[in-house]
Amino acid sequence: MTASRLKNVNWPHTVSIREVGPRDGLQNEAPVPVEARIRLVDALSGTGLTLIEAGAFVHPDAIPPMAGTEDVFAGIERVEGVRYCALVPNAKGAERALGAGADDLEVVVSASETHNQRNVRRTVDESVGEISRVVELARNAAAPVEAVISTSFGCPYEGDVDPHRVAALAVRLRDECGVDRLSFGDTTGMASPKRVTDLLRALESTGVSPGDARMHFHDTRGSGLANVVTALEAGVTRYDASVGGLGGCPYAPGASGNIATEDLVHMLEDMGVDTGIDLDALIDAALLAEEIVGRRLPGQVMRAGPRTRLAEVG
Amino acid sequence: MTASRLKNVNWPHTVSIREVGPRDGLQNEAPVPVEARIRLVDALSGTGLTLIEAGAFVHPDAIPPMAGTEDVFAGIERVEGVRYCALVPNAKGAERALGAGADDLEVVVSASETHNQRNVRRTVDESVGEISRVVELARNAAAPVEAVISTSFGCPYEGDVDPHRVAALAVRLRDECGVDRLSFGDTTGMASPKRVTDLLRALESTGVSPGDARMHFHDTRGSGLANVVTALEAGVTRYDASVGGLGGCPYAPGASGNIATEDLVHMLEDMGVDTGIDLDALIDAALLAEEIVGRRLPGQVMRAGPRTRLAEVG
Repeated sequence: MTASRLKNVNWPHTVSIREVGPRDGLQNEAPVPVEARIRLVDALSGTGLTLIEAGAFVHPDAIPPMAGTEDVFAGIERVEGVRYCALVPNAKGAERALGAGADDLEVVVSASETHNQRNVRRTVDESVGEISRVVELARNAAAPVEAVISTSFGCPYEGDVDPHRVAALAVRLRDECGVDRLSFGDTTGMASPKRVTDLLRALESTGVSPGDARMHFHDTRGSGLANVVTALEAGVTRYDASVGGLGGCPYAPGASGNIATEDLVHMLEDMGVDTGIDLDALIDAALLAEEIVGRRLPGQVMRAGPRTRLAEVG
Repeated sequence: MTASRLKNVNWPHTVSIREVGPRDGLQNEAPVPVEARIRLVDALSGTGLTLIEAGAFVHPDAIPPMAGTEDVFAGIERVEGVRYCALVPNAKGAERALGAGADDLEVVVSASETHNQRNVRRTVDESVGEISRVVELARNAAAPVEAVISTSFGCPYEGDVDPHRVAALAVRLRDECGVDRLSFGDTTGMASPKRVTDLLRALESTGVSPGDARMHFHDTRGSGLANVVTALEAGVTRYDASVGGLGGCPYAPGASGNIATEDLVHMLEDMGVDTGIDLDALIDAALLAEEIVGRRLPGQVMRAGPRTRLAEVG
C-alpha cells in the first residue's frame, strides 16, 4: 500500500451563495408576471440566503422576461440581512437600478471577444469603458459593483480561453474600472476541475486569490458540483447558484442550466460546510419556481429529497 | 494573500470504467427485446470500454428486463480486449453465467441489513454464505468475482451507514469469501465528497487501499461527478457508470440514475485522465440507448455535446 493520499480535507467552514434564479434563471424562461417574480424573491429571502439577484435593468425589448424589474424591487418585502442585487448592462441601467433600490450592482463582460460581441454587441474594450461609468455611479450611491467575466472557462465560438487572458481582464476590471468584486462565469458549461485549477492559478499569479473570486458554474455537461468541490479545495468561498436550476444563457448555444442552489446546499452541508441556508425552505422555493415557470426544473434534490429523508420499511 | 492551496493536482493518469448500462441500467427500465440489448452491448464494445456488464442471471419473474441474458451472451459479437461480466444473485445464477460465457461475475450484498432484506430477502450473513459458494464455482472456471457492497454511503431505510461497518464487510468478503475485487455502491445517491473520504479512510484503516476499491456512484442528488473527483484525488482508479445515465435501483425508494458514462469520460479526459474511450462513439451509444428505451435519458453530454463542439458565429 502506497502512502495515503487521504490527507485532511481542505474545505472552508462556511461559504456564501448568491441566488441568481430571479434574474439569470427567469431571464431565460418565457416571461412570467411581476407578481410571480416578487413571490419567488420573497420565498428565497426567507431561506437564509443573504444575497439575491432580483432582476436586471435592461431594455424590455432586449430581454422581455426582465421587463418591470422596477416593480419587482418595489414589491418585494425587504428582509433584514438580505441584499438584493441587480444586473445592469450600462450606466443607464445602473441609474435605474440605484433608483429602484438595488443594494449591489452586477456588470458583465466576456473574456472572449466574439462572445462579448454576440452577447452585448460591444467590444471588450467598450464594455470595460461602460463598466467604469457604472462603477462611478455606484460609488456615489455607496453600492458595491461585482463584475462577472463570462466565458471564463471556454467560449462556445472561440473554444478554449487562455486563463491568463481571463486573469488580465480581471485585473483590469479591478484596477482600471475599480469594481469591488470579481466573478467568473462558466457561461456554457465548459469548465472542468482542470479548467478551474488552471484559472485559479492564473488568477493567483496576478494577485487575485481564490478568496477574492466568485465562481458561477453551469451544469451543462454534468460537472457543475465537481467544479465546486475543486474550487472549494482551492479556497473559493463564494458561489452563484439558481434555485431549482432555473436558467442558462440564451446567447450561448448549447447552454443549459445553472447549478441548482438546493443541490449545492445539500452537498455542502453534508460536507460540513455551512451555508446558513434552510434546505427545506429552499426546496419549497424550488417547487414554487417550478410552479411559476410551468416546466420541470433540473434540480435533483427538490425531487429526490435530502439524503436524510428516509423511506418507510414495509 | 494566504499561502496557495493550489497544490499540484493529484489525479491518476488513467482510470478504468465498467459500463453497467446493459444490466444495472436496463434492469430498471421496461423490458426491451434481447436483440436491442445485444445491439447496445455491441455498440459499447466498439467505444474502447474494456469491461461491460452485459446482463444478470436472475429469475425472469423477479427481474423481467433481465430475462434472456443467455441469449444476450450468445448473440453479442465478442471484441478482443473486452471483458463481459454478469451479475449473479446466487450459485445457480453463477452456473448459468459461466455456462453462458461470462468473463467475470458480480455479486451484491448490502452494508445495511434492512436494505439487504428488502433487496434480496436474505440476511447479510446469508448473502455472505451464498457469495462464498459463487466464488468457489467461479474459481473452478477461472472467472474473477467482484463483490458490490450496496448502501455503502447510506441506506434509504436505516440512514447513515457507519463506514467501519462497510469496511468490516469488505474485509469479510475478501478474506472469508475470497472475492477478487471490491466495489462500493451509492445505491440511492446518498454519497457526498465527505462520505467518500470517510469511507476511504475506514477502508484504508483495514488494509483496503483506494487503489483496491471501485466506486459506483449515482447522481440522484446531483453530486455524482463531485464524488468521483474526491475519490480520484484519494487514488481510486476504477468506476462504474451507465451509458446515458440509464438505470437506478428499483428497490431503493427515491433512487434515480447512475452517473452517465459519457459525462464521466468527458470530464476525466478534460482533466487529462485517460479513459481509453472514444467519446463520440460513446455518445452514439448513449443515443442508441435512448432510442432503445424510448425515453429521454439524463446524460448531459449526449445532449449538449462535448465542450470542443463549437457553435457557428453568425
